Amino acid sequence: MRTIVWHDKDQVIEMIDQRLLPGEFQLNRYEHYQDIADAIRTMVVRGAPAIGAAAAYGMALAGFNSTASNHDVLIEDLREAGEQLKVSRPTAVNLSWAVTRMLGAAESFTGSNAELRQHLLNLAEEIADEDVAINQRMAAYGAELIQDGDHIVHHCNTGALATVDWGTALGVIRMAHEQGKRIHVYVDETRPRLQGARLTAWELEQYGIPYDIITDGSAGYLMRKGMVNKVLFGADRVARNGDVANKIGSYMLALAAYDNGIPAYSVFPISSIDFELERGELIPIEERDPDEVLEISLMGQRATPEHARAKNFAFDVTPNRLISGWITEKGVIYPPFKNNLLDAMKA
Amino acid sequence: MRTIVWHDKDQVIEMIDQRLLPGEFQLNRYEHYQDIADAIRTMVVRGAPAIGAAAAYGMALAGFNSTASNHDVLIEDLREAGEQLKVSRPTAVNLSWAVTRMLGAAESFTGSNAELRQHLLNLAEEIADEDVAINQRMAAYGAELIQDGDHIVHHCNTGALATVDWGTALGVIRMAHEQGKRIHVYVDETRPRLQGARLTAWELEQYGIPYDIITDGSAGYLMRKGMVNKVLFGADRVARNGDVANKIGSYMLALAAYDNGIPAYSVFPISSIDFELERGELIPIEERDPDEVLEISLMGQRATPEHARAKNFAFDVTPNRLISGWITEKGVIYPPFKNNLLDAMKA
Repeated sequence: MRTIVWHDKDQVIEMIDQRLLPGEFQLNRYEHYQDIADAIRTMVVRGAPAIGAAAAYGMALAGFNSTASNHDVLIEDLREAGEQLKVSRPTAVNLSWAVTRMLGAAESFTGSNAELRQHLLNLAEEIADEDVAINQRMAAYGAELIQDGDHIVHHCNTGALATVDWGTALGVIRMAHEQGKRIHVYVDETRPRLQGARLTAWELEQYGIPYDIITDGSAGYLMRKGMVNKVLFGADRVARNGDVANKIGSYMLALAAYDNGIPAYSVFPISSIDFELERGELIPIEERDPDEVLEISLMGQRATPEHARAKNFAFDVTPNRLISGWITEKGVIYPPFKNNLLDAMKA
Repeated sequence: MRTIVWHDKDQVIEMIDQRLLPGEFQLNRYEHYQDIADAIRTMVVRGAPAIGAAAAYGMALAGFNSTASNHDVLIEDLREAGEQLKVSRPTAVNLSWAVTRMLGAAESFTGSNAELRQHLLNLAEEIADEDVAINQRMAAYGAELIQDGDHIVHHCNTGALATVDWGTALGVIRMAHEQGKRIHVYVDETRPRLQGARLTAWELEQYGIPYDIITDGSAGYLMRKGMVNKVLFGADRVARNGDVANKIGSYMLALAAYDNGIPAYSVFPISSIDFELERGELIPIEERDPDEVLEISLMGQRATPEHARAKNFAFDVTPNRLISGWITEKGVIYPPFKNNLLDAMKA
């Protein structure tokens, strides 16, 4: 099943509430694009490809939400919706990629408003379908790099839940598993929101892939003990020079892999590349509510002092020198990324 | 107040139950050395110097617990107690250091059993007093390295709670603060048991030192943003070549510091050096109950799937090449550690 589904009869978008997993599997329904923006902001849906698709559906909803009978007014309404959807989270470029694509299609459309509304919905469905197809191509390319017997450290959640279906880095793992390779995953729990411990562990159980959850500070020790063969993570935004913004902790993980001669791959669709940004330092990094760090309990007790303060950056930037390769739907791209990306795009 | 106190009237050892902080401040009383071993194992008391002192008091209790009237039988009882105390946690060398010191004193004692029992208690009190004095000397040496305006990343808890009083790495921070230097601490929360978020944050509030808790994967990002000047952590066991076993996550933190040209210091008493071990790889690393990783709740919900598995190594080993200096009671020792340690010991 998909993480984001359009229900034509009720004209609603249905999404899995990822905040409640693994304890509870609940589907939420959304009738208005503003509620989609809220769902992205509060992380009902998360993962760069998934929030891109959610924003595309949000734009389709915005078409239906608008009562405009005039084309220009409808375009204005869509632009306003696009602004709200784009700012719902700042780091993943997929959001603005999806909004720009939807808005471009609307602006160049010449039919009636009713036809435009349907056209936008069709395009959102196309973006969602494309995401699944792209993920399967990435998974196939990536799986070639995985050996029978590999122990893989995986950061955050990059599976079906982080996309429309199938996943990016976790898609590679799933594909290798389906090819009959015996693999084992060390799941970084990924503080503060524990997408690894909550979502990746849950997905791996569905797929029947063996795993152990580890704390985020553990991977380096396992590497020094010779217990790790590869590191895989996704990407929220990639700069032209190959620097990768991804969930906080990815940089320290990639550093440890590099220090131990273990390959670290970032797995993402070409839509995660921001062709306008030269270097990773220019990627805006989201700072979230400190309570995400502070509201943690061990054995039923709140762990932090009542008035404690915290800093909660959601992402970091891994410099290109630490990344062994990009796994994309155009194939595996190796350093130097800038040149090899151009070749891959031409192919 | 001290973390470990002997009450002569009741012949009991009193310790702060560190598992309950910061929510609850509770003092537990122990009449039997086996209960001290349990308290070390379950982390009522933790921190290499603190468990060394607790083991010394445990040996004193073992003297009182033994009903032996014959000297040799009492020594046998003490040896049995020493074995049980030493195995209560495997990584910190301070445990066996304290037990060996207590047992050596007992074996060479020539008075009556009643006098020996009192002699052991006096020695335990001496070890505890020494720990405080050593920590203050380390703090004074270390504080010279701290600049006004420094932002310091600190891992785990190394404060008064991790020692008899004052602390190792946190002692340095406290001393610099008392000298009037304006400093700010980024507190690694230190999964899985969150000694940073629970204990270090709580101590820093007592001392009035500004801090922010961060997740363990965050320090590298802050360093790349130029937000960090120094890294400080303790040690549970140090090999002769300068490799440092410390709380899991220290290695990845030291790597990030090294990658960003930020000095990383390990702060510990000479009693944390295992002169018998040539290299860090030889240090036994404790593997603890996976439930310490798995039993975590966010906003009241258990975060991990019901049947999830985890690996829970409590420590890692930071290679000497990543450590800028040892801060000890003999002064700050710089690389090459092996040679410079010998000089410091002679001085």
